[in-house]
Formats: sequence, C-alpha cells, structure tokens
Amino acid sequence: MHPENDAAYRGLKVNTGVLAPTVNPYLKRVPKRNKYALPEYADGILNGNITVLSQAVTLIESVHPEHRQLAQEIIEKCLPHSGQSLRIGFTGVPGAGKSTLIDTFGMHLIRQGRKIAVLAVDPSSERSKGSILGDKTRMESLSREKNAFIRPSPTAGSLGGVARKTRETVILCEAAGFDTVFIETVGVGQSETAVHSMVDFFLLILLAGTGDELQGIKRGIMEMADGVVVNKADGDNLEKAKIAAANFRNALSLFPLVGSGRIPQTLTCSGYFAIGMQEIWDMIHDYIVFTRKNGYFYRKRNEQAKYWMYESINSRLHDAFYRHPEVKARLPVMEQKVLDKEISSFVAANQMIELFRDYFQYI
Amino acid sequence: MHPENDAAYRGLKVNTGVLAPTVNPYLKRVPKRNKYALPEYADGILNGNITVLSQAVTLIESVHPEHRQLAQEIIEKCLPHSGQSLRIGFTGVPGAGKSTLIDTFGMHLIRQGRKIAVLAVDPSSERSKGSILGDKTRMESLSREKNAFIRPSPTAGSLGGVARKTRETVILCEAAGFDTVFIETVGVGQSETAVHSMVDFFLLILLAGTGDELQGIKRGIMEMADGVVVNKADGDNLEKAKIAAANFRNALSLFPLVGSGRIPQTLTCSGYFAIGMQEIWDMIHDYIVFTRKNGYFYRKRNEQAKYWMYESINSRLHDAFYRHPEVKARLPVMEQKVLDKEISSFVAANQMIELFRDYFQYI
Repeated sequence: MHPENDAAYRGLKVNTGVLAPTVNPYLKRVPKRNKYALPEYADGILNGNITVLSQAVTLIESVHPEHRQLAQEIIEKCLPHSGQSLRIGFTGVPGAGKSTLIDTFGMHLIRQGRKIAVLAVDPSSERSKGSILGDKTRMESLSREKNAFIRPSPTAGSLGGVARKTRETVILCEAAGFDTVFIETVGVGQSETAVHSMVDFFLLILLAGTGDELQGIKRGIMEMADGVVVNKADGDNLEKAKIAAANFRNALSLFPLVGSGRIPQTLTCSGYFAIGMQEIWDMIHDYIVFTRKNGYFYRKRNEQAKYWMYESINSRLHDAFYRHPEVKARLPVMEQKVLDKEISSFVAANQMIELFRDYFQYI
Repeated sequence: MHPENDAAYRGLKVNTGVLAPTVNPYLKRVPKRNKYALPEYADGILNGNITVLSQAVTLIESVHPEHRQLAQEIIEKCLPHSGQSLRIGFTGVPGAGKSTLIDTFGMHLIRQGRKIAVLAVDPSSERSKGSILGDKTRMESLSREKNAFIRPSPTAGSLGGVARKTRETVILCEAAGFDTVFIETVGVGQSETAVHSMVDFFLLILLAGTGDELQGIKRGIMEMADGVVVNKADGDNLEKAKIAAANFRNALSLFPLVGSGRIPQTLTCSGYFAIGMQEIWDMIHDYIVFTRKNGYFYRKRNEQAKYWMYESINSRLHDAFYRHPEVKARLPVMEQKVLDKEISSFVAANQMIELFRDYFQYI
C-alpha cells in the first residue's frame, strides 16, 4: 500500500501547516488525530526537522495502538538511514553529577561540530515525575543549543517498554542527522543492562569517596563499563579523586578483559569546571577506533540488534502470561504455598502453566 | 488419591526385592517399569537409603513423562523434610583444581561428622560426556565414603532443564539426611547464575597467575562470590598465591557490599595437600552465622524458592514459543533481515509473535 493511501485509508488528517509545539498530547487515553501522515513524518525527520522528530517520538511513547502502528511505520522508513551515530551510555548514582557532565561534555562535542541527542532510560520516571532529564534546565547549555535534542525518559511502566521506546527513538534521532547519541540512566536496577545493550560505549561516572567509592552502584555495573570517570575532580577534591582513580585502575586491571579486548580506562574530570572533557572524548574515540579495527564494534551492534528482537519477543510472551487475569489472581497464592513449603517451586510452576495451557499447543 | 492406589492406578510394578544398581536405565526412550511405587521411594529416601535415593534421582533425570510425574510426587513427599542442609556452590575454571578441592574439603567435613552430597550443573556434560563429575574417580576419597553421595550433572539439553533437575535433587538429598550439599559448576556461561540461585554460599576457586588471574572467569562471576580461595597455594606457588589473594582482597574491598552485608573473604589453600581446609570451613560457617543473624540467609532462601517457580514458568513459556515449528523455521530468516536492516528488531518481534498469536488471548 502506498504511504499516502495508507494514511488516507486510516483517516489521518494530513496537516502541512505551521507546527505548534505541544506537550505530549498522545499520552492521553483519547486518541487525537495525528498531525501528519507517514510521508511528512519521514521527510521531516530525514530533513532534520526537530519539531517533527519530537512529534514522532511522542507517537513512539503513545499508548494508543494507532499511534504505535504509525510509529512503527516511521521507524521502518528511518531504519535505512540509522546506525551512523556514536552511541554513548552514561550511568552513575544520583549526585555523581551526570547531568552537569553530560551538559558540559555535550557542549564540548558540539563545538567540534557534532550534533547531540540526549535520551534517557529511567523506568522510575513516572513515579518520580522525571527524576532524570525531566527538567531540561538541568542541562542548561545543551537545552539552548540548536544542535542538541534533549528528550526525557519515556514514562511507560515496565523497564522493557521504556527501554524499547528509547531504543526506537535512537533510530529516529540518527535518521534526523544526530551523529552522537547520549543515553543517560541511573546506577541502580536493571536499566543499565538495557542501556548497555543499545550503546557503543558505556561510561560509568563515579565520585571519590572514603574508600568505598562504589557503594550504591550495583556490582554488575562495574563489569559493563567501557570507561570510568571520577567526577568532581576539582579544588580540594582533586587529590582524593586522583587516588580513587588510581585505585579503580588497579582493580580493573585485575579483572578479565571484556569482549572488546581493552581494559577500561579510568580518568578524572570535572563537569562543573569543564576539566578533562577532551580526555574523555579521546578515550571514547580511541576505544571506537580500536573496536572498529578488531571488529568488536560491528559484532556488538549485530548482537544488539538481535538482542532487541529476542527481548521484544520475550517481553510479549511474558506479558501474555503474567497479565492473564487467572494468572494474576492465582500467582500470589502459589508464591505463598511455595514459601510455606506446601508445594515445590516446580509443581507450583506446573500448576500455573496448566491454567494457561489452553493457549499453548506445544507445552 | 492415596499413594498406593495412585501407583496401582498407573499400573506401576511394586518391587520390594533386592536392588541392583543400574546405570540410568530411564534415559532410554522406551520406559522401563519403575522399581518402586511412591511410598517405597519416599520411605527409602527418608530412611537414608542411598540406592533408593539414586533411583529417584534417575526418575528426575528421565525424559519419560510417567517418570517425571512420579518424580514430582516423590519430591512433594520429601519437601517437608528438606531445607535443613547447608548448600555450597563451587565454581572455577577448568584446571583450578575444583574436584581435588571438593574431595579434600568434603573429607574434612565428613571427619567432623557431616554427610555430603556432591551434585553438579554442567549443561555441556552431554556433549563432553561429563566434563565435570562424570568420572567419580576424580573424587577418589569421597567416592569410597558411605557418608557421601556423588551424582554427575544431569545431561538433558538446556541449562534451565539441567539446573532444575539438580535443584530437585537437592530436595531429595536433604530429605535423605545429607546436611551438606555441594554443587559444582564451571566458570563459564550462565550455569553460575543457576547454581548461585540454589546455594547459601558460593565459593570461587582461583589460581595465582601472572597478573591477570581472572582471565577465563566471566566478569559477573566475581560479583556472585561469597568467598574466594586461591588454590594450589603450595610449594613454589605459595608466595604467588598469597600475593594474588592480597590483590583480590584489595579489589573486593573497593566493591560495594553484596546483599549479605559482608565483604567476601579471600583465602589461600591447597586441595592437593589439604592445606587451609578448616579455614575455608570457618569462612563459610562465619558467613552462615552472620547471615542467619541478620536475616539475609532466610530472605535469600525465600527469594530462591520464588526464583525457581518463576524460572520454571518462564522456561516453559519460552519453550512453548521457541519449539513451535513455524517459529523455528522463521526465526533465522527474521534474524538475517534484522542484521540486514530490512526491518527493525521490533517489527521482527511483532511478526514472530503474530505467527504465534492464535495461541494467546492476551497479547
């Protein structure tokens, strides 16, 4: 079906007029008419029109099936024009100075002619009303910069859903000409795994502390880092930060090499005073050159593409089961029986699957 | 239904005669008649009869539905008598001296009056014909010991299946009076996660090397360890091992505390020369006392029981999908399309789920 006909077929209003910025109108349950049809979205994004890009991301985030369908079609159109950016993940506990560092580092790259999209994965953002990136003023310089596109974390419930939406948004940002995509996340929970699965370089931001510098960071996150920076290395804090960095450097050298074949570097920096920005960029740049040369960069991208296919399949299977009303009603009862050793974990699982058996042919 | 009637109903032969040890007869496709009915199995196990225990484990490992059904019933009977043992996981790369250490350490505990069951999780054992524990002669002392029960890894295909069977075997061993259960695994792949989810204490066995001691051990495994031993700390190797242990100790102290609230200890030992066995036992014992006191021990056990219920449910959902013939045929095609950027990971996932949609009501 031809895209224009497709839009007409679904009764979408084709609006080519002046665009008024709106605040997520599609998050409401009642669907509004789409501002554009598919070709307008695709052309707008490919021409780098930020307003159209922003509207398309809103479609990705919408809960309405019609919007999601249109979003998928936009993504398909953008897909051949995606993949050219450098994707960098940022993690660190609250207070590590992530926003300031991203703001300063982003401006540093913009002055070198790069275009920066800043996205986030924070499944808690709905509850906390946008704990990260919710407030654009937290990235003061970037938010005034025409070569930057800042988008808070999607707010839909599950981590899988939030992460998927951010991953889809990356495709649109790349098609819109952003050559650098930052994805911010918090140093707790499973969201790091999700972000790690969509970036080329994963940067861990730490603070110098009192010997237990990593407290609050989940152990597994250390393992994902392609590079580490000790932030707020300025003034009285400088010596402490240097010692902390040296300690991490030693610790990391003991650990086995990650798939990239490179021991993660540990640097010090100050986001607030813009110290060490070029060094961070050099570290990332060297890593990318190195992994492109040994092929790891491309293998990882392929693995990531497959990961997201399987991840989507699995989360939909999961939802199909766990959202089933009978399952929902029965599961807490079963859990308690298992804890009380009335039945084994395995018999409990069997009984739960039985409830659902009608829907399967091959169990 | 009364157990006896149940057995009679299913036409099982009730054999109370002398038991000849057999070599996994149930692994054959053609089902053999069961040696006993449910009450004989349950009584035999609860009386600590090793031969009956061994036969029951064979039922757990069987691929025949009738055996699996009987196995589940035996497990249910044993369940109220399980949970009293100390469950200890052992991991380390091949060559780290796991078998020798387990043999020596097990004998050390048996001399203190403990009864040891030694199990394994090694999903590769089918291919490699039992790479760990396949050969009882690798644990020479324990294999001659009446207070030890050694069982190689189940050989069924997927990790989930292998791990589930081992987890079920733990229940039977505990009901049979084994107060200490060792579970061995290899330092690669996902099997550590499975073993970590069924033990109270997870011991990482390392060797002193040349500065990159952890090469070959997956990074994430370091994070699971409740304790670390540098093995083969004897003769010329002693100094090197001590230095390695000191390095690890420093590295581990930098990392955040695990849920137990205790920094993992790092010891040196020699399985071959039986050096440091009491120190290992003290480390484990102190850990258990500590975590029982702060409640972590019990919380973890409850989490594990729930984990195995969800794990079983999820693996059955997974199998229902991925073993579907249409899915099997279509998946490689889809993967390639994703890699060629013909379709996005998400659209590919949607299309795969569509194939399967008839079986779901709630997708």
